[in-house]
Parts: sequence; C-alpha cells; structure tokens
Amino acid sequence: MKPFMDKDFMLCTDTARELYHSFAEQMPILDYHCHINPREIAEDRQFENITQVWLGGDHYKWRQMRANGVDEYCITGGAPDREKFQKWAETLDKAIGNPLFHWSHLELQRYFGYTGILGADTAEEVWNLCNAKLKEPDMSARNLICRSNVTLLCTTDDPADDLRWHKAIAEDKSFDVQVLPAWRPDKAMNLEKPDYPAYLAKLGEAAGMEVTSFAALKDALKKRMAFFDGMGCRVSDHALEYVMYVPASDSELEAIFQKRLSGGQVSREEELKFKTGFMLFAGAEYSRLGWAMQLHYGCKRDNNTGMYRKLGPDTGYDCISNYTPSGQTADFLNALNEGGALPKTIVYSLNPNDDEAIGTILGCFQDSSAIGKIQQGSAWWFNDNKAGMVKQMTSLANLGLLGNFIGMLTDSRSFLSYPRHEYFRRILCGLLGGWVEAGEYPRDMKKLETIVKGISYNNAVRYFGFALEIK
Amino acid sequence: MKPFMDKDFMLCTDTARELYHSFAEQMPILDYHCHINPREIAEDRQFENITQVWLGGDHYKWRQMRANGVDEYCITGGAPDREKFQKWAETLDKAIGNPLFHWSHLELQRYFGYTGILGADTAEEVWNLCNAKLKEPDMSARNLICRSNVTLLCTTDDPADDLRWHKAIAEDKSFDVQVLPAWRPDKAMNLEKPDYPAYLAKLGEAAGMEVTSFAALKDALKKRMAFFDGMGCRVSDHALEYVMYVPASDSELEAIFQKRLSGGQVSREEELKFKTGFMLFAGAEYSRLGWAMQLHYGCKRDNNTGMYRKLGPDTGYDCISNYTPSGQTADFLNALNEGGALPKTIVYSLNPNDDEAIGTILGCFQDSSAIGKIQQGSAWWFNDNKAGMVKQMTSLANLGLLGNFIGMLTDSRSFLSYPRHEYFRRILCGLLGGWVEAGEYPRDMKKLETIVKGISYNNAVRYFGFALEIK
Amino acid sequence: MKPFMDKDFMLCTDTARELYHSFAEQMPILDYHCHINPREIAEDRQFENITQVWLGGDHYKWRQMRANGVDEYCITGGAPDREKFQKWAETLDKAIGNPLFHWSHLELQRYFGYTGILGADTAEEVWNLCNAKLKEPDMSARNLICRSNVTLLCTTDDPADDLRWHKAIAEDKSFDVQVLPAWRPDKAMNLEKPDYPAYLAKLGEAAGMEVTSFAALKDALKKRMAFFDGMGCRVSDHALEYVMYVPASDSELEAIFQKRLSGGQVSREEELKFKTGFMLFAGAEYSRLGWAMQLHYGCKRDNNTGMYRKLGPDTGYDCISNYTPSGQTADFLNALNEGGALPKTIVYSLNPNDDEAIGTILGCFQDSSAIGKIQQGSAWWFNDNKAGMVKQMTSLANLGLLGNFIGMLTDSRSFLSYPRHEYFRRILCGLLGGWVEAGEYPRDMKKLETIVKGISYNNAVRYFGFALEIK
Repeated sequence: MKPFMDKDFMLCTDTARELYHSFAEQMPILDYHCHINPREIAEDRQFENITQVWLGGDHYKWRQMRANGVDEYCITGGAPDREKFQKWAETLDKAIGNPLFHWSHLELQRYFGYTGILGADTAEEVWNLCNAKLKEPDMSARNLICRSNVTLLCTTDDPADDLRWHKAIAEDKSFDVQVLPAWRPDKAMNLEKPDYPAYLAKLGEAAGMEVTSFAALKDALKKRMAFFDGMGCRVSDHALEYVMYVPASDSELEAIFQKRLSGGQVSREEELKFKTGFMLFAGAEYSRLGWAMQLHYGCKRDNNTGMYRKLGPDTGYDCISNYTPSGQTADFLNALNEGGALPKTIVYSLNPNDDEAIGTILGCFQDSSAIGKIQQGSAWWFNDNKAGMVKQMTSLANLGLLGNFIGMLTDSRSFLSYPRHEYFRRILCGLLGGWVEAGEYPRDMKKLETIVKGISYNNAVRYFGFALEIK
Repeated sequence: MKPFMDKDFMLCTDTARELYHSFAEQMPILDYHCHINPREIAEDRQFENITQVWLGGDHYKWRQMRANGVDEYCITGGAPDREKFQKWAETLDKAIGNPLFHWSHLELQRYFGYTGILGADTAEEVWNLCNAKLKEPDMSARNLICRSNVTLLCTTDDPADDLRWHKAIAEDKSFDVQVLPAWRPDKAMNLEKPDYPAYLAKLGEAAGMEVTSFAALKDALKKRMAFFDGMGCRVSDHALEYVMYVPASDSELEAIFQKRLSGGQVSREEELKFKTGFMLFAGAEYSRLGWAMQLHYGCKRDNNTGMYRKLGPDTGYDCISNYTPSGQTADFLNALNEGGALPKTIVYSLNPNDDEAIGTILGCFQDSSAIGKIQQGSAWWFNDNKAGMVKQMTSLANLGLLGNFIGMLTDSRSFLSYPRHEYFRRILCGLLGGWVEAGEYPRDMKKLETIVKGISYNNAVRYFGFALEIK
Repeated sequence: MKPFMDKDFMLCTDTARELYHSFAEQMPILDYHCHINPREIAEDRQFENITQVWLGGDHYKWRQMRANGVDEYCITGGAPDREKFQKWAETLDKAIGNPLFHWSHLELQRYFGYTGILGADTAEEVWNLCNAKLKEPDMSARNLICRSNVTLLCTTDDPADDLRWHKAIAEDKSFDVQVLPAWRPDKAMNLEKPDYPAYLAKLGEAAGMEVTSFAALKDALKKRMAFFDGMGCRVSDHALEYVMYVPASDSELEAIFQKRLSGGQVSREEELKFKTGFMLFAGAEYSRLGWAMQLHYGCKRDNNTGMYRKLGPDTGYDCISNYTPSGQTADFLNALNEGGALPKTIVYSLNPNDDEAIGTILGCFQDSSAIGKIQQGSAWWFNDNKAGMVKQMTSLANLGLLGNFIGMLTDSRSFLSYPRHEYFRRILCGLLGGWVEAGEYPRDMKKLETIVKGISYNNAVRYFGFALEIK
C-alpha cells in the first residue's frame, strides 16, 4: 500500500517515479490561463487567515459545502471565518475522491508544511497553523508565485481594461515573473446582454472613439488589441456556449448591431450570426498578431436564478451543457482557414464527451505554420481531476501527438493553486510510466525526457512564443 | 489469480476486503425503488421452478436469449420450462462480462448454495437443485426478503391504485419489513397516449371526483398523494423521455388539456408544455409533502413494434435515448427552486454520457434544506454493471460528495435480486479500497466506515426520513 | 516491467497470454471490410520503398505529420521519398500512446524483422532495411496476404464497378484466398452531390438500362446486386452522416428524385426522406439476398475546404460528428423489421459516446433468424486503438453477448495492415484474461477457447455464411 499523498503521489510505477522526479518536478510553471487579480500581485497582498485564502472566492469549494447541506451564511454569508473553515473541514470528510481533497492537502503540504489530514477533528489545529504561517513574509502573493517556480502567468482581462497593474508589475524591477494580460472580449460579443450598450460606451472610451457601428466596434477592438499586444499579450480567451457557425454578410451583421443599439429585439438566430461574425473577425486579428485563440465552451452559466440575484456570476451555479455540435466547430475553423486567417487555436469543451470529437477536429486544421497549431486544452474546470485528465490525454494520444501538447493551466483565482500543475504532471508521468512498464512504449529515457519536459513547460514556451528559455 | 466469485469477489485489495467484510456486508438493505408485486408479498408466494423465478418476467434475460438466436417460443412462448432454462444456460455460455452472468451466479450461491458454473453442460444439475430448494419454506417471497436483510422496500404504484396489498402487509404483524408504496403518476401525465381519457376516469374514481379539467386533475392527484402519504409513501418516480422545460401559462395548460379531452390533436410542443406544467405541479407537491422526486430519463421505449403488439411494454425492447438536453434539466429544477418548491430530487439518466452533466447540475441546486438534497441516482438498468457503477461513482466523487450518496436500488421485479446490493457494495468497496491503497485517500478506517455504511444504508435512511434506525 | 512490444505485448496476465498464444494467435484472418485495391492483388503488386507502402495513401499518418508541423510538400507533395520517411520518423517521436506507433512497430517486426524503435535517429537504418526487404518476392501483395494467414477479404466496391479484378483473381488458381466484392452504393444514394446525374448515367450503363426514375434506380441496383451476389458478395456497406429515419410515400420519393434530375433544388428534408427511402429499399434487398448490412456513421467529411480542393476526399480531413440520434436509428431498424425485411445488420458509429446506445438498440431487434443478428461493429477508424476497443468490447459485454461478436476488420488500404487483427486479438485476450484473473469469469479454458476463437474468426465465418471452414 502506498502512503497517503507522499512524494510518489499518483506515481505507481518505477518509470512514473523516475519521469516525475527526474524531469517534471523541476520544470518551472507557465500558467497561460488564470484569473488572478494583478492588483494583488502589484500590491503583494498578504492574507489574514486561511478562510480568506481558501473560501474568499473559490466557488469550487462553495459548491461542495452546499452539497453537504451547509447554510449559505457559513459559505458566502456573514459567519465568522473560523466557523466557515470548520464547515469546510466537515465537508472534506465527505469528499472522498474529489480533487479538492487532493488540492487542499497538496496546498497544506507545499505551503504550510502540514502533512496530516484536514477534517472536522483537525480543523482547529490546521486553522492555527495556517494562520500563523500566513503572517510570514514568504506567504505574500509575489512570494507564493516565486516559491511555486512560476516564470510567467497570463491573467484574464477585458479589452476596456487599462492594464495599469500589469504595467506597475512590469516596471517593478524587484519582481521578475512576467505577468501578462490575456484578451477576453466576451462582453464585446454578447450583444444579448442588457448592459451591452453601457459596455460599448466603456470600450469606446478606452479606445478613444465612439462605437456606433459594428465597423466601429471592430476598429475599437483593433486599437485595444494593439495596446494589449504592446503589453505582451499573446493569447485570447473566449467563453462560448458552443462554437457556433451561422455565417452572415457584413451588411447583415451591421443591421443586427444597429437593431440592438436602437433597442430592438435581437432574435436567437441573429445573435448566433452576430457572434459568428464577431468570432471570425476576432480570429483573423489573432492570426495577424500571432496570438493564440482559446475557445472555451460547453458551459451553461448561472442556473440558479435566486442565487444569481444574491451573489452574481461565478459563484458555483454553472453546469455542463451537452449541446456542443462538433460540425459547427469544424465549420467555424474551416471558415477562418479559408480566409487564410486561422490562428493558433486551443479548444476546450467542458463536456468530457467531446474529447474524441475535438481530437479529430484538431487533425483537420493542422499545418506547417506551427507545431501542434490546433490544440485541445487541458481537462478543464469540472474535468480538472484524475479521471478527466487521463481521459483527455488518452484521447489526445490516440488521435494526435501527445508529445506536442502544451499542457496545464490553473484557471484559478488563487495564489495557492500552483500545485494543480504538480497534480497534472504527476498524473501525466503516471500515465506515461504505466505505458512504458506495460511494454506499450520503449523505456527510452531520452525521448521520454523530451516529451515530459515538453508537456510540462517547453511546448507552451514555444507555442505561444513567450520570451522564456527552454529548459 | 483470484478464484471465481469467492468471498472476495470484486475486492482486489486488502483495504477493499476490509471495507466490505467489516462494514458493508453486514448492513441491511433499503430498496427504495423496485417493481416487486406487493400481492406476492402479502400472499407470501412460493415459486414452482427456477424458470418461473428467473425467466417469468425478466426482460433483461429475454434480451440476451434473443441475442443468442433463441426462438421466442423458448423465451416468452409456450415451450416447457425445462427447455427455456436450457436455452438460458446456453446463453450464459456467451455472456462473458455481462452482469447477468454475475447476478445469476450470486443468486445461485446465496439462495441455492450452488458454487459451480451454470452453462449448457450443468443446466440439468442446476435445474434439479434449484427446484428442490424452491420447495423449501425459506424460499417464499417473505422469507427471501427477510433472509436478504431487507428492512424496507418501496414498490412502484399508480395513483389510482388502492394499495390494498400494502395495507394487508402493514396489518400483518408476523412480517415486520416495511413495504411502502412509491408514487408513479406517468399515466396521469402522458396525455398523448390513446388511453388517457380512460385513465382519467379511473383516477377520478379512485379520488372520488370527476376529472374534467387540469385543475381537477391536480385536485385528484393531491387527494391521492394524501392517501399515499398516509400509507407511508415518501418517494415519487417519473419516467420521462428527458427532463423537459417548456413553460406555459395556467390557461394555456388548461386549454391543452381541454383540447385533448375533446378528442383534438395535441401537438408535440403542446405535449411538452403540458408535461412541463404537470411536473412543476408535481414537484411542488412533493416539496410540500417532504417526498423525494425521482426523475428517470434517457430511455426510448417499445422500439420493436411487432413485438410490442405481441408482448406489450417492458418486454426487452427499449433502448438508450441520446437526446437528453442538460440545459432543460437545469432550467426545470431552477423553475421549481424559484417557486421555493424544489423537493429532494434524484436524477437518473439511462445514457451514461450524462453522468458528468448531471454531476454538475446537482451542484447548482444544493442547499441547507437537506444533506445532498439533489442526488444522482445509482447506475441504472443498462448501466447496472461494474463499468457503469464505477463511472457513475467516479463522476459523482469528482463533482460532488460521494460520501453523501444514497446508493443502490434494485429496480427489479424479482425476489432474488437483492444480491445486486451486494454487487454494488463490493464494487464500491473495490473502488474506495483502490484509492486508499494507491495513496489517494488516507487509510482512516473510522472515516471510511462512516462513508461505506452511509452509502450502503444510512444515507438513504436519513435522506428519505424513513422510520428506521441508523446502523 | 514488460519489454517493449515483445511476444506478450498487451498481455498482462498469465491467462491473457495463454488465451492469445493457445487460441487467438493461430486463427486465420477474415477481413470482411477493407479498402484494398483488387487490381493490386490481381497484378501481385511489388512496392519500391517503404514510403510508397506507408505514406502513399495512408491519411492516418498524414494527419499526424501535419500535427507535427510538417510541410505538405513532405507529406503528399513532391518531396523525395527518403525525406518524407524522415519526417514520418520524426513524427513518431511525438506519437507516444498513438496506435500508429504500435501498428508501425508491429509491421516492422512482422514483415521486416526489425525489432528496434523507429525515430528520427534510426530512420536511415530502417529505410535501408525495409527497402531491401521490399525487393524480395515474399513481399508482393499476394504473398503479404498469404503470409498474414488471410483466408478471405472483402474489398469495397461501387455498384457500377465491373469487378473485373475480382473475376481475374477468382479465376487464377495459383491464389486461393477469396477476394470478394462488398457493395457500397453511397453514390447512388447521395442525390445532393453535384455529380449525381453523371453517376446515374454510369450506373445505368453498368445495369444496361436508363435510370430516369427512382423505380428505375431500384431496378438498376437490383440487377447490379444480382451480379455482385453472383461474384460472391455477402455484405454491403453504407457511409451515413447518421442513421436517419424520415419516412415518405413512394410517390413523394419519386417526386424528390424527379426534382433532382430536372435540376431542382432538393431541400434538406427532402434529402433525408430520399435517403431514408433508399436505405429502406436497400435493407429489404439485403434481407432477401441474405447479405449483411453495414451502417457506418458519425463522421463529418472533408472539413478543410482548401485541402479538399487540392487533394480530394479521404486525405485526412474528416472528424467525428456528434449528431447521431439513437431514436432514429431504432426507428429505421424497426421500419425494416415491420416489413419483415430487416437483414443482418452491423452498426458502427465513429462517435465512441454512442457505444452504449448502440448496445441497447441491438437488443431490440435480435431474433432467431441469426445468432447475434444485429451486431455492433468493432471500434472503427479514430476508435481503432486500445482505449476504443476496450470501451467497445466492455460495452458490448455489458449490454449483449460478447461471445457472439464477429470481431475485427482492417478498414485499410494497405497490405501491411493485417497486424491490426493481431492488435485487436491481443487486446481482446488481455481484457478476457484480466477478468478471469480478477475472479470475474471462471478459468474454464474450454469455454474461453470457444469464445476467443469465435471472436477472432469463427463467428464471422458463420455470420456471413462464407464458404470457409470453422477452425
């Protein structure tokens, strides 16, 4: 029997252990997709207690507490932090097999030196230990990033954002981790939202122009892209219901936009046409700039209307959408490709059933403009667990070249989330080591080193073209 | 090599064996969803031969016999029972990996003391042994239930049913297993069926009123629910194509109902609206009564029209439907929740691809009104096998709190089907034991005991609120 | 640790090894579905170099080279063969876990006696070795077939084909492997294609009649079926987007056909009706002839328009379609069955998520007219890998009788592809052996022999009714 989460966690064979400890463990982290607040890096935030760090904004944990029947008062409400922590610890006692059980203990081990088990009975001990540790200087936002061996991270930013905190960080010579913006223009696309006109005004202000037409919107976005590009942005990010393809003419798109601006009712079909047109424009610009395009989809958001009214978005009320037509995904990429404007693209569905369809779509659009130009993103959000990762990597290996995979991202709001890269690498090495020991891949440590280091770090460095050294 | 189906069947690690033999094995059975005929319990039926028990009504077995090219005469036709049994034994020789192979041998071991292998060559021996055993008094319906350590079972009953057999059983002090009705109002919802008006008349009679409007239908159902509630009912059950959400106003629903009653043609959209309205009414009543709502879907029934004409429904001609829009499931639950009327709910799709979408929907509607208020039902019908169970429990563990899972049900018509609970518990312990031995969960036998006993029995006791002791 | 791809490749238990080496290994190959060019057999083609054999037409390999950023010039373009081979070898260095890695090394071991690892560093050595071997007489098309222990293979042929090469092979007494045509009438069904009228003219010519009505089309096809039947054809093959069921009257079908012939625009609904009518006709004819009907679907083809213009179809630009409504599949089979005209049918979806739905559809239409009359085809194309096969066979075992499975096909254009049968059998024996050693199936070597030999060869002999001996 293997001990619980020791140094060989997730590593069940000798080869797995060698791959991890010799190659993966030492690689830096390039977190090309997260939701960290750059201000907290710029100001080098220090946290007061473990509830603040763990339960202040983590809707993954909130969901599980609700599933344990915990009152909202002890989750997002006004309960004392100690009480909230107790409820979280009690919830962990039910969370066998859940990745949060592993992540929590990885964080306790790596950042707090705690190797016990957090549960109702140890909550007091862990609370005291963590809170004492959190007062130490090496637990500040920046130090957590540095200790985690992060070389570069991409935040998630609106086109209207002035990126002042990114600028501040870049100018601060005392901190040499690259903190780059990523371009997330969802608000500029979602014309069905009530606050769309207000958003356009905000965007226009940022771009120094009025946005009174779709043509003007595109101009404004181009200006902002140029600004983001100058700030080091190399990657965009789109949250879509699904990758739709309902083409329309320029004049039709302009008419839909005008209808919306004049307060008219945009039909579902018009919405799909507009979004298709928006995405075709955006993709072409990314191609021109050499940016990668991330397409996230398969998510139905804010399903609990009552709680949405109370807490707003991103509070743990989203689910997988199983309407994700692979045909439209292929047609959308083809349309960009036909225009000679298909950028490097990373496709992520939240629906794990899409793994194989995505794996086959990738293969239709690969070409010599980049190695592994079209990628499937790592098992994401609800799939960010051992089963999800093994499924995604096995599918990728079966249908494409796993050796070119750009690997893991945290998608997280937390400075303690970097062990998710460790978790991913352990699972990766467990998978590859298993293949080797089963005689399904040769024990050629030179080739395996290239593959493991590539997926852990080097492939992403090359793929995005960041100013980083290959390790 | 492990011996075939010995005491450690499905238990591949020391921890798995300890979890099963120390905790799971001794727990009673709470079978909250089955299709047993209560009359057979009331009358304490004794069976004449093994064909009668095994092949009299089990369409799972019939399907496999047909897949082996057996003539219908030897399945549901007039062939002698011995010949039918032979054909079943021959079919088992092809059934490697099929759960029926395991269930059959578990039943032979547990109830008949037979530890050999049933096949064409041993059919005669097994036939004789089983038929001799079946004559013994401990093989009566009641004794089979008692020997199986069942404390409570819920049958499946129509709102118009007078529950006379449940009453008889409850009044019989010589039998202390609780046999409770479960509320299955499909016939009251399915207005597209030819015999809908006839059913309404029957329901009206049971409720002592005329059902001439949707409002009256709701009143009649409320009266019957009150009656069922008085008979100990705590749980409803709905067979849906999918969980639809097409809302309509009360007046629209009434108009659809009137159209149907007056012999008009109800469109597909009207059908969906009516069913949505029906389910919203039903869910709200369950919430008021504290009942749990079971939603079963993803099934397309009676696909072989010729055989349907000959044999009727539930004869082995159903298949998985892969149209199960997760978005509508979420919207339906949200609509109930918005009305403050979301009951405890158990969601089961027959399509195993829905596991993850369901797992994420649960999380959107959990709250402090119950622990694990929204549940995913156990791997069901076509998924009631090792792969299906492991997939469902792994998904549940990844996305929610496996520790709160209410576990297994038989969904069966047979008094010999209780080893399916054993099968489930072995697979559960195999899964958990594997995690522990791989170092993915601590070997804390106290916590594991709570989890294993909970999933085996205690969680269901608490969840439904039955008058049973926690073990 | 097991050595890389030695004699016990994919065989992790003693029982697996015994099943493979005692039973599966020696069985002949019946390749009932491939895309080999019969002319190359008739002419006993000899290949000049390994690039010609491996990269001349294999779009599976082309896709992976594109995924490695290789220029099309070195894939399908004018680059020297040696350079193309180098690029393929470099691609293999990234292909960990890909079935092409295994297939390539199986082919190198079995046909070229090379037991090293092909990669960038060994490409020169392998190039020289293979090219020398390819000059030997035992590497001709016929000798490759004979050395692979193939007793019968079915090519894929258009109804208008004169089957001259099949005739030539049949008449050549020096070659006793049966090379039979299979009937693939896609071009006669796809009325939406621009070249449909031209195809009808060609078909009419082959049938010696004019095809000016749907009735005439059916007559022409019947004539050609009779011809194919006389040439030994026992199996048809249909590539469908999905198995659709949109019934229409004969007169409606005729009207759609006439509209198309007169140059009118056929709507999507008319197309679906016509195809449904075509398939109902075809299925009934197969039933009459005793042919098996293969239904392949779940594929969206030619997604990269630019490359389609350059290279045409079947060049590596297809993907999985996830619109495959199980309800329509069931309704289509039911409609044939209602007419007493359901032939033996083999259902293959390219979407692995369909495994379970298919497994349950099979069970709705099994009867005593054949053992395992309705089959799920082996894991196909993008699923032709260990994970895909294990998933398909596990699903099949759970839902039906794995013991009646007709097993593997190559679906290949290559004379070196027969090790895919070996690959399949190893995975089969690995799966069954694992069950036995886990105590989930008895170690009854007599029963296991029947099962393994059946799935490897004998079941297909019986199922199709070929003139071959049971082994």
